[in-house]
Amino acid sequence: MRLATVRIDGGTRAAVGDESGWVLLDEPDAQELVVSEGWRERAEAALRHPAREDVDPAAFGVPVPRPAKVFCCGLNYRDHIVETGRAVPEYPTLFAKFADTLTGPVDEIVVRDTAKLDWEAELAVVVGSEVHRADKDEAAAAILGYAVSNDVSMRDWQQRTLQWLQGKAFDATTPIGPHLVTADAIDPKAGLRITCAVNGETLQDGNTRELVFDAADLVSYVSQITRLQPGDIILTGTPGGVALGMEDPRWLRDGDVVTTAIEGLGELRNTIRFA
Amino acid sequence: MRLATVRIDGGTRAAVGDESGWVLLDEPDAQELVVSEGWRERAEAALRHPAREDVDPAAFGVPVPRPAKVFCCGLNYRDHIVETGRAVPEYPTLFAKFADTLTGPVDEIVVRDTAKLDWEAELAVVVGSEVHRADKDEAAAAILGYAVSNDVSMRDWQQRTLQWLQGKAFDATTPIGPHLVTADAIDPKAGLRITCAVNGETLQDGNTRELVFDAADLVSYVSQITRLQPGDIILTGTPGGVALGMEDPRWLRDGDVVTTAIEGLGELRNTIRFA
Repeated sequence: MRLATVRIDGGTRAAVGDESGWVLLDEPDAQELVVSEGWRERAEAALRHPAREDVDPAAFGVPVPRPAKVFCCGLNYRDHIVETGRAVPEYPTLFAKFADTLTGPVDEIVVRDTAKLDWEAELAVVVGSEVHRADKDEAAAAILGYAVSNDVSMRDWQQRTLQWLQGKAFDATTPIGPHLVTADAIDPKAGLRITCAVNGETLQDGNTRELVFDAADLVSYVSQITRLQPGDIILTGTPGGVALGMEDPRWLRDGDVVTTAIEGLGELRNTIRFA
Repeated sequence: MRLATVRIDGGTRAAVGDESGWVLLDEPDAQELVVSEGWRERAEAALRHPAREDVDPAAFGVPVPRPAKVFCCGLNYRDHIVETGRAVPEYPTLFAKFADTLTGPVDEIVVRDTAKLDWEAELAVVVGSEVHRADKDEAAAAILGYAVSNDVSMRDWQQRTLQWLQGKAFDATTPIGPHLVTADAIDPKAGLRITCAVNGETLQDGNTRELVFDAADLVSYVSQITRLQPGDIILTGTPGGVALGMEDPRWLRDGDVVTTAIEGLGELRNTIRFA
């Protein structure tokens, strides 16, 4: 099942969908939907009817627009770690973003004051139920679904100090979407191709089976530290191929189109604008 | 003027006070209070009446319980930086906490799974109005007030990876309070003594005039990255004297009482409990 938040009539609506299209529901967004009583039965019932709506790709917003917590994992693709000569880490490297950092799947990404703007295609994990000090099975059961994201990074700000946060938290710079695919319908551990292209040229090409810490590992690990709630998000790290790793980095420029895709989850398509 | 959130009758209430005591207001907490119309005039009017209530110190909760963003600044006391032989930084080192990380001014701090629990007395800055891409004057005008905080840190978790977040974000481990003092009534730049004692032994003893990046610097800097809203918090870093800096670190143990105080802002008194 697919879950989305659709911008319509000056507001937003939750939507449930499949490969045939979308059904708009009463809740204002998918985050409200998944905390409402009996949502899954209602969503499944809606999809048993053949009626579908076409939704303009530009109408999709952030699927879960108010996460209280957004965690990101650094260095997490085994093949990329090995190619850089580093040891496979014992613990996930975690930093945070904010709800305000997120933006829609085809929104323009407007930046300023950076000369080193980079891309990072990432698998996003969305939490569906409260989870605290969970083992791996409990963590897996708490995962609502998955989406595509791009941890767009201001490397100059990121490298000003030892802590990465300031290069990762500019408002409305991390696209996520285009929708969630629920965890019963897709398994990143089975191996999903993950790519990032700039102006059509594929620069990252990895596979989610290479994750050192998979979705359930990360939910379990984070839940030892803090209680996670429905709508909270964990970004799982990026494979090789970012500008930072190039001998002569090709930083993002005004007008560049960044296309981020994960097999079975859809794609983001964001144009970069320098304000 | 002092602002607090008081636990009472199974809920909470905003309170306004001065050196004579407290007046309870209708809003459920100080964060709701300061976004309500005409709050400052109402609070001042309440304080013109002589009636005051005594409030049990244990009744004070987190003054602003739902910050959307909690930023923390590392390495920020000039005397401490110089004594460790490092250069005074050009940019603030920033990391995040969450609303759930906070706890009340005399609450027990319950921890587990750590063998290196440390204290960090810090001045907390609370934002009072929306602020985005602000210069220093605009940033100063957006500061609601100040409080005492302690960035209690699990050094073992903090040092597992390059990013500090996981050692800084355990639920209910960062006390803040006992109340806010509004920015018109106190000036940390003028120099406020800041101390942390464990079981009565003073182990940190600094002064807020030594801040490399002062409150308005930090609000301005963070506001270049993200929009700040009323109730958002910036912790401004800690002076020398933490366990981590000792030759033979004296980590916190079950039953230790940590007293964190800032001149003019009051004190926190938290007992450590290992679950």
